[in-house]
Amino acid sequence: MHEHGGNLDLAQQRFGGRVEDWIDLSTGINRLSYPVGEVSMRAWSALPSRSEIETLHQAAQHAYRTSAPVVAMGGAQAAIQLLPQLAPRGQARILTPTYNEYAPVLSAAGWEVEEVSELDALAGAALAIVVNPNNPDGRCYAPKDLLALLPRVGRLVIDESFADAVPHLSLTSEALRPGLLILRSFGKFYGLAGLRLGFALGDATDIVKLAAMSGPWPVSGAAIAIGRRALLDDAWAEATSARLARESVGLDAMVQSQDWRLVGGTPLFRLYEMPDALAAQEKLAGAQIWSRIFARKPNWLRLGLPGSETEWSRLAEVLAR
Amino acid sequence: MHEHGGNLDLAQQRFGGRVEDWIDLSTGINRLSYPVGEVSMRAWSALPSRSEIETLHQAAQHAYRTSAPVVAMGGAQAAIQLLPQLAPRGQARILTPTYNEYAPVLSAAGWEVEEVSELDALAGAALAIVVNPNNPDGRCYAPKDLLALLPRVGRLVIDESFADAVPHLSLTSEALRPGLLILRSFGKFYGLAGLRLGFALGDATDIVKLAAMSGPWPVSGAAIAIGRRALLDDAWAEATSARLARESVGLDAMVQSQDWRLVGGTPLFRLYEMPDALAAQEKLAGAQIWSRIFARKPNWLRLGLPGSETEWSRLAEVLAR
Repeated sequence: MHEHGGNLDLAQQRFGGRVEDWIDLSTGINRLSYPVGEVSMRAWSALPSRSEIETLHQAAQHAYRTSAPVVAMGGAQAAIQLLPQLAPRGQARILTPTYNEYAPVLSAAGWEVEEVSELDALAGAALAIVVNPNNPDGRCYAPKDLLALLPRVGRLVIDESFADAVPHLSLTSEALRPGLLILRSFGKFYGLAGLRLGFALGDATDIVKLAAMSGPWPVSGAAIAIGRRALLDDAWAEATSARLARESVGLDAMVQSQDWRLVGGTPLFRLYEMPDALAAQEKLAGAQIWSRIFARKPNWLRLGLPGSETEWSRLAEVLAR
Repeated sequence: MHEHGGNLDLAQQRFGGRVEDWIDLSTGINRLSYPVGEVSMRAWSALPSRSEIETLHQAAQHAYRTSAPVVAMGGAQAAIQLLPQLAPRGQARILTPTYNEYAPVLSAAGWEVEEVSELDALAGAALAIVVNPNNPDGRCYAPKDLLALLPRVGRLVIDESFADAVPHLSLTSEALRPGLLILRSFGKFYGLAGLRLGFALGDATDIVKLAAMSGPWPVSGAAIAIGRRALLDDAWAEATSARLARESVGLDAMVQSQDWRLVGGTPLFRLYEMPDALAAQEKLAGAQIWSRIFARKPNWLRLGLPGSETEWSRLAEVLAR
């Protein structure tokens, strides 16, 4: 398993405490989750029907403002796992630093993988991967620049796992263009990563292929019921986007007392540069607040946003020490 | 999508009624589900940790009485989807008639697929598939015969999706043998198919490969929490096995008034042969009881077991008409 946030078991092993004592800011998962509500007995017991899955797809098209074909999967990660089988093996280029699952998944399946650091360097690749906005540094790419790149690559995958709160960056409305494939995560913005739900949007050929590879029941009944309700709830999404925009800037203000510099971020997480990220992680862990550091970038620490007032206070307190 | 049970949307389209009015006997899913109980907020919101997934694997080893490596997936179907990538393409042979996803999944990935009707005819295949007990006809294969076949095939996949209530048929205790791969469904016996949970058990090489292809978070937090509890509950499993054994025979007795002949079955479903299965399906559908018929076998009708007393009465009533 590669290095990921959300590894609270590691935090517990090293610093003790019960899972429920920890404030996990090691991911970009919204800590004020969409209300789960009641899950019907049928959602637990029955195989999801075609029409139930179809209503989920329609809700995703609504939330992502597109009429492009869509397929639900067990998280954006599930789509990443299938990417190597979507086209004949060739050269993949990944705009890095970024989410660290693309390179190993493609390499393991026999793709030649090259990591590049500029958008233009993706041109010529059979498969080009861009995470927009990027994780962990929040770097953003203008939709028009991505569309200009599209004819210069075999297939362009844009991972919009963190785009919900910045919809102007999204290319879902263009997902019908051949060669363009958009991945969306449900769990991060809606704060329900344990539900395992994500989507791929693209032209019919790719989506039919991904759907066939995912099998007839790729997501749970609970994911369909809760996901559909959440994706149709425009009021919640708007209020949440506004809150995250406000509070992410608030987090930057709160850490100004530290010798930390903002590298970038999204409304769901911030990346700070500092002299010793491991020391900062340990300081936060002393107050049972878990953060994300990066083996290859010893000066980087990524922080998600606290949820409740109590969580914000606990963070303020440890930072003031 | 291939022909499957559980397609209540089709039943509704053709015969009307609300989903909740129907008694769905078109699958082999236990209608008296394991109690779901409360799902913690953390299970919904957080990414499952390595150690949480590990506890689920241990619970599966307990329930399936084995120390063999195991990997959790989104249903036995999720493992089927990965089979084509487990080994270099070659000839697959499937013992048929059986569950109709193996052939198309393997064919779509470029495998040469041959359907055979006797166990011995599997010998020589690179990949051999046996469902034991078999769906839909309940045919059973003795563990010793399967083990004798093992050295004569490249890889032997035994789908034990319906083996929970007939554990003497299971080869999970032998799953460590190289070349043997056992698939287990969680949702059928525990009546929680909407949870999307299943397992593959085998030697470390295969299981590590399947785990890598499934990605770091292959199942939901709810699947881990509920699955673990259920798989450790020996008392429930024993009582349920006893009830299903009793009631499946009770179903055979109940249909004796019809011109139906028992072909075979498992404690979770029965397959009956009759002059006109479509007419029988329509008769049952008139009482909003859904059953499974087979395009290629117009004389076959498969029935799952009703759950509550009310459901048994409704079935008895329509059969008496």
